[in-house]
Amino acid sequence: MKHFLNERGTIVTEALDAAVMLGEGKLARLDGYPAIKVVVRADWDRSEVAVVSGGGAGHEPAHAGFVGAGMLTAAVCGEIFASPSVDAVLAGILAVTGAPGCLLIVKNYTGDRLNFGLAAERARALGLAVEMVVVADDIAIADAPRPRGLAGTLLVHKVAGHLARAGATLAAVKDGAERVARGVRSLGISLSTGTVPGQPTELRLGPDEVELGLGIHGEPGAEKIAYRPVDELATTMVARLERMLADTRAPLAILINDLGGVPPIEMAVATRAILGAMTREVALVIGPARLMTSLDMKGLSISALPLGDDLSLREMLCSEVAPRAWPRGRGVTRVAPLPLPGGMQAAVHAPSVNAGRRRALAAICATLASLEAELNALDAKIGDGDTGTTFATAARAIAAELDALPLDHPAALCAAIAARLATVMGGSSGILLSIGVAAMGAALGGHAGAAPSSWVAALREGLRRVQQYGGASAGDRTMLDALLPAVDALEAGEGLAGAAAAATQGADRTATLPVARAGRSSYVPASALRGVPDPGAVAFAAVFRALARP
Amino acid sequence: MKHFLNERGTIVTEALDAAVMLGEGKLARLDGYPAIKVVVRADWDRSEVAVVSGGGAGHEPAHAGFVGAGMLTAAVCGEIFASPSVDAVLAGILAVTGAPGCLLIVKNYTGDRLNFGLAAERARALGLAVEMVVVADDIAIADAPRPRGLAGTLLVHKVAGHLARAGATLAAVKDGAERVARGVRSLGISLSTGTVPGQPTELRLGPDEVELGLGIHGEPGAEKIAYRPVDELATTMVARLERMLADTRAPLAILINDLGGVPPIEMAVATRAILGAMTREVALVIGPARLMTSLDMKGLSISALPLGDDLSLREMLCSEVAPRAWPRGRGVTRVAPLPLPGGMQAAVHAPSVNAGRRRALAAICATLASLEAELNALDAKIGDGDTGTTFATAARAIAAELDALPLDHPAALCAAIAARLATVMGGSSGILLSIGVAAMGAALGGHAGAAPSSWVAALREGLRRVQQYGGASAGDRTMLDALLPAVDALEAGEGLAGAAAAATQGADRTATLPVARAGRSSYVPASALRGVPDPGAVAFAAVFRALARP
Repeated sequence: MKHFLNERGTIVTEALDAAVMLGEGKLARLDGYPAIKVVVRADWDRSEVAVVSGGGAGHEPAHAGFVGAGMLTAAVCGEIFASPSVDAVLAGILAVTGAPGCLLIVKNYTGDRLNFGLAAERARALGLAVEMVVVADDIAIADAPRPRGLAGTLLVHKVAGHLARAGATLAAVKDGAERVARGVRSLGISLSTGTVPGQPTELRLGPDEVELGLGIHGEPGAEKIAYRPVDELATTMVARLERMLADTRAPLAILINDLGGVPPIEMAVATRAILGAMTREVALVIGPARLMTSLDMKGLSISALPLGDDLSLREMLCSEVAPRAWPRGRGVTRVAPLPLPGGMQAAVHAPSVNAGRRRALAAICATLASLEAELNALDAKIGDGDTGTTFATAARAIAAELDALPLDHPAALCAAIAARLATVMGGSSGILLSIGVAAMGAALGGHAGAAPSSWVAALREGLRRVQQYGGASAGDRTMLDALLPAVDALEAGEGLAGAAAAATQGADRTATLPVARAGRSSYVPASALRGVPDPGAVAFAAVFRALARP
Repeated sequence: MKHFLNERGTIVTEALDAAVMLGEGKLARLDGYPAIKVVVRADWDRSEVAVVSGGGAGHEPAHAGFVGAGMLTAAVCGEIFASPSVDAVLAGILAVTGAPGCLLIVKNYTGDRLNFGLAAERARALGLAVEMVVVADDIAIADAPRPRGLAGTLLVHKVAGHLARAGATLAAVKDGAERVARGVRSLGISLSTGTVPGQPTELRLGPDEVELGLGIHGEPGAEKIAYRPVDELATTMVARLERMLADTRAPLAILINDLGGVPPIEMAVATRAILGAMTREVALVIGPARLMTSLDMKGLSISALPLGDDLSLREMLCSEVAPRAWPRGRGVTRVAPLPLPGGMQAAVHAPSVNAGRRRALAAICATLASLEAELNALDAKIGDGDTGTTFATAARAIAAELDALPLDHPAALCAAIAARLATVMGGSSGILLSIGVAAMGAALGGHAGAAPSSWVAALREGLRRVQQYGGASAGDRTMLDALLPAVDALEAGEGLAGAAAAATQGADRTATLPVARAGRSSYVPASALRGVPDPGAVAFAAVFRALARP
């Protein structure tokens, strides 16, 4: 397993330094690497209750990512999945605690409880007021004597941080934190195990198995269940979670946590499934986001907290905080699709008569249809051999409908042909020609306040768009090598005969161009191209010759 | 490969619906699933230039995640890695474009260019002012005729969105977008290939290989290089990127993009490496974050944009926007560690004399040392057989230093013993006893305004902390089952003899307790526990009997 890391021993310290580097001057860290890994608010004056949390690393952005005004005052970090030492916790407490005191928020793991606990006692012996709240929100194991602390801990951080910033006493901050800790319940699920850097990935899940009741340290889930569509998995999870909530009526806040390795599109689909599975009212959604991860585990957890009857808990969860990793809570909006805009259907153009244009169009179509075999043979040498058929198919379709076209209205005529090309011709060349002809139509129609263009100016505009969207230029071995010289000749007043001569010369010249930079031949070696003209250019040279015939 | 999905055909629509559900009423989607997948601002009145982008899905949060005030007006989404249709793009344009017009921002892929291009032509034919900017920021392939559009596209969205919100004309919005598109350069790297749902993972990378010059569609990188520590990989990437920037002096904005599957701790380490490798001044960092992903690819990309001499570009990149997926840019702060707080070193307590306490301590230590074999034997039946040695080791260490202790100062005496226990005793029980004795010391010292406690009250306080941090209660088969009855007896005025009798009774009773809910025996089946008393409780019963001897 490969990782974006340097060495095992510096992973956590390097990650914490990155947090400080991008902390906008509001974060600092204590000296004492590697033993002491503590990130603190740099904009902190000890005038409020300090809120300190932490634990093993591997859960990023927890915990350092939540240090900032309105959430944590300090985060004390251990190595990956290992509790920080008593000394590290004590350093964190001493670095931020003033007269109002300090609340420690600890996830319910023996190592964290004991190391934070002893540090609390030492800090108390030094005269500081320190309290501790233990979070045990996991419902994976029924009647577990000591449930684990999971992502629900973040809701405790949020409420404690809110109260502390509002100037509450240590007792009041602790009360608020304990209220959340008592109410919140969490459940995790995973499709795969995570990978601890330097250790092989444990492959304990079969292709049709999913683990339910996950912790955040790579330990096995409480049970294996069948891999099912996420709507079903979400229903299973939500049913268990709702059953475990003490308050059976209040609306819920839910936190949707990516355990580290779920791509955003899957988290979005899972979020829709979770919201759809909830039978309780969801007043507030926090996430989906990577909040309390388990390295790269492809899993997620749901935490739910009844909000009670008063609005204060909701307000405390929703107040703005400095840490960017905290996603502001939001409500759920029903999806009510907007009607499609009018004008989507291609305009229906009434047929009209113009004998000259009908003749010219018929000549173009006949020419392209007649070239099918020749163009296919040329394309077979430098591409996939279908240029002739592609052009001929479109030509025959349009030839069959000549009398249904608005022949006497240039802009409408182009629009109608462009619409047909996009559907009957297919492939990139069909869309490109459609773009060119549509742009001619727009120019001929004189939209956007401009006067209607001449046919030559419209052709120039069409070619400009073909170049813009297709990305090809003169000399790139495409149809442009016939069309651009032709329009140059027309602009120079040389008429259709001049245009035909220029187009033919341009098409012939493609046989000598060594490297194709765009279009069908750009993946073909130069040796295969030598002496073979581009079939698209050959086709349009023939079209101009046909138009030039008296 | 398992995914949090329902079925292949509804992945994109379900993900988009999740975005709308959590869009706080500011997002909507057009009707027309599955063909038309367009997310639009619900808070939009067509009074400014509309900024529309999109492309294949699988790049979340791009593009729907960036719809909102200050960025995109609409996102037009295709299926995974597939361009949206002309009709879908046209629907997006028509849904949001008013008199000021519409700018399309398109990544440089043929399908996107053509489908957005034809839709633009159709919209123009309907009288709308539509312009298009193509982003081609990839530097993977030297002299590529058509570089791909990568995450640098997001900087184009940001600047165009800023200008549009500020009321700029379509021409001015386009100019600003083109300025960014011309300046930005991006390079991707990956440790693994991504997985398209429903397709097998392509395993084209060996364990020592890394792909450099990645796109965002799972296609192979431009080259394979050796897997190295991330500091070296970052140096390679940054050197190439800086070489490709046209402006050689201006400070840079860089965007650090997680391609989808990099856990946050690794992105943090990589970010530190990237910032360290930059030789140009970095004025602004956007990310690290998942911004333009390639499903679950474990890779990242760096985009760099010279900011020019004036400050306007920086301001345009930094202005607040509604979409949450956009991480506000920030500067880089130097890491200057704060000195460790004072008071970290354990207090040095001057020795003092108190004959009675010396005798009591000596008796406790001698008792525990003498029980080593007996306690080990008990523990072997229900745990790992080291309880006797753990207690005896600590007892001998303290006995050897009795005359160095501050025997005549109760609070200092407890603090000194607590400090020794934490270091010489080891394990959870060492920290737990240290917590208890430290709490006794704090109580005896009368900190925080309270009067100094009596020894009995201090013992009660110590036990309270042991219960709190250790998580065990009476009846859980731990040392508490001797200690709690003893302190009850002391509080009842029964003296040390009464305490000894109560502790002994409590310890004996542990042999009859069926299930351990905490401590060393909680993982042992009830049948193995029957008739075996808890060794910790036995130890403290013996301690009280020793203290009660005249």
